[in-house]
Amino acid sequence: MPDVEGFWAVVPAGGAGTRLWPLSRAGHPKFLLDLTGSGRTLLQATVDRLTPLTADRVVVVTGAAHADSVRGQLPGLPRDRVLAEPSPRDSMAAIGLAAAVVERIDPDAVVGSFAADHVIPDTGAFHTAVREAVEVARDGHLVTLGVEPTHPATGFGYIRAGEPLDGASTALRALEFVEKPDAERAAAYLETGGYRWNAGMFVARAGTLLDLLTRWHPALAAGLREIAAEPARLDDLWPQLERIAIDHAVAEPAAADGRVVVVPAPFTWDDIGDFASLGSLLPVEEGVAVLGDRDLVHAADTRGLVVPAGGRRVAVVGMDDVVVVDTPDALLVTTRARAQEVKGVVEALRAEGRTHLL
Amino acid sequence: MPDVEGFWAVVPAGGAGTRLWPLSRAGHPKFLLDLTGSGRTLLQATVDRLTPLTADRVVVVTGAAHADSVRGQLPGLPRDRVLAEPSPRDSMAAIGLAAAVVERIDPDAVVGSFAADHVIPDTGAFHTAVREAVEVARDGHLVTLGVEPTHPATGFGYIRAGEPLDGASTALRALEFVEKPDAERAAAYLETGGYRWNAGMFVARAGTLLDLLTRWHPALAAGLREIAAEPARLDDLWPQLERIAIDHAVAEPAAADGRVVVVPAPFTWDDIGDFASLGSLLPVEEGVAVLGDRDLVHAADTRGLVVPAGGRRVAVVGMDDVVVVDTPDALLVTTRARAQEVKGVVEALRAEGRTHLL
Repeated sequence: MPDVEGFWAVVPAGGAGTRLWPLSRAGHPKFLLDLTGSGRTLLQATVDRLTPLTADRVVVVTGAAHADSVRGQLPGLPRDRVLAEPSPRDSMAAIGLAAAVVERIDPDAVVGSFAADHVIPDTGAFHTAVREAVEVARDGHLVTLGVEPTHPATGFGYIRAGEPLDGASTALRALEFVEKPDAERAAAYLETGGYRWNAGMFVARAGTLLDLLTRWHPALAAGLREIAAEPARLDDLWPQLERIAIDHAVAEPAAADGRVVVVPAPFTWDDIGDFASLGSLLPVEEGVAVLGDRDLVHAADTRGLVVPAGGRRVAVVGMDDVVVVDTPDALLVTTRARAQEVKGVVEALRAEGRTHLL
Repeated sequence: MPDVEGFWAVVPAGGAGTRLWPLSRAGHPKFLLDLTGSGRTLLQATVDRLTPLTADRVVVVTGAAHADSVRGQLPGLPRDRVLAEPSPRDSMAAIGLAAAVVERIDPDAVVGSFAADHVIPDTGAFHTAVREAVEVARDGHLVTLGVEPTHPATGFGYIRAGEPLDGASTALRALEFVEKPDAERAAAYLETGGYRWNAGMFVARAGTLLDLLTRWHPALAAGLREIAAEPARLDDLWPQLERIAIDHAVAEPAAADGRVVVVPAPFTWDDIGDFASLGSLLPVEEGVAVLGDRDLVHAADTRGLVVPAGGRRVAVVGMDDVVVVDTPDALLVTTRARAQEVKGVVEALRAEGRTHLL
């Protein structure tokens, strides 16, 4: 299949992944890590997955601190395709800046945003859904990919879908975006069948996205277009930009206005939010998932996840549902059931001023 | 109190402590480690506990591989008071060689054997019991200290005690030594009240011990006395010595012959056989016992033992009954309930030829 003419991928590469400490650190966050044992980092796998659709039309937006690492991991990407944010201004500024840059190169371009730390094993199904999203987006819609839920997750937002857009595609009207639900509400969402996970994958003409933004956040849209026109003004203008997520800035008001379309995404998707999620993505042998060199692990009568990233021998005896993450300067032992609480360790270390471990 | 005239301590320093892997290794076995957080190794604490009774009359017997470490840890001990075994020949040869060496220095000497890896917090009660044992031993008895059991342990042998020896002391006739019992039998032993733990603490005149040995193992006794007379012959004679434990060689037949006396030892005693035992000896804060720098440990809603001996941060979240032992080249995670099975890890590593980790 040829690539999709005029389609650009925007890859926001941010987020510390604190629930994956001590593997993920501020200095090498999860998108820079190979968390699937594939030999490619999450960022590299994301770009690998996109380039059959975009060829070299990929823009990565990341924090200034990670720009060199990102360029190092993507040696084929021209230097100016990595946009470095002087400071974090949330997802609307990041994606919007990339859209504004792309808009200047090709006023008719369609952009799609795909976070650098997501895992989608079925590349074929992903391509099919994105191709359809791009075609729908050419008509001026803001399109989002709605991931088919596999369980009543409380860690994701949901999209409520309505009637089909028309007879030509699988796309549906998106009625609203809803925040992360509690367990009861999540179960109810699954039961109705009308809800899909919001994976933050938005596809729209660059101009559509920025024009929608102009309606609700005109100063932000103008600032982004000014930076794209005069990149030298980035450091001056960036700190004044509004700090807001793309969902709140554009997706929610546009949905209320009938401007959003959801394309069903019938593939497995995960954002590896914690070690329970990571463990479920890895092959399990004799009860134990290992990320890294299985030869370093001696597990006896144990179920769980072991990450021997410290290069040392890791012996685990008689543990049920355990998570052991060994790194050169820090070690974590917990259970998959308590994986969310790892965030608390990071907060405690920060409170104690142990920033070298963060 | 003055020291006990003519009393010599023999300290067998052996045993790999495989159930304490990866803390205890073949190269630095448990007696060379500070396992109580006192700032003194088990060997040093053993000698510290004995010198008020013996002054400088202490002989340590250890494997040739550890002789330098032992001398390094005991700088006050004359070099020739550390006897280096060319190869392991079990406890009778080790203790018997020391007895033979002491016998040549002082034919009337009383020797007492006290393993280098035991923990006895109440030094005063220990001294009282040993002083009494020495007095009884001067009359030609083989005396053993019988530790008051605190629970129906299955990891220790027991001594069945009979009638009082005479009115002058608390000593009792020892009727028999029994092997490590199963749980049911151990409970029955405790119920009768007539059984004590065999802690391997034997006190006798050096001559008595060797003469008793001569009755049942004449070649072994003669060989030990020949080596003591001509130390240069150690390497020649040692490999020919019978390999047998002191319990089987002397204590059991002598008890059957009515020659053994037990002095009650009303003090807490532990041989730190595994991590469950180690954890019970350490102070517990918020559910967690730490051996080492508590500042390295972040424990949240956790009960168990953490040994941060790798110098790294150790975070444990939501674990019940956990044992985490971190060292520079190997890490163990298990439960106190499964602590005995650590031996299996060591056996597996040996089978795989990973001798550098043993």
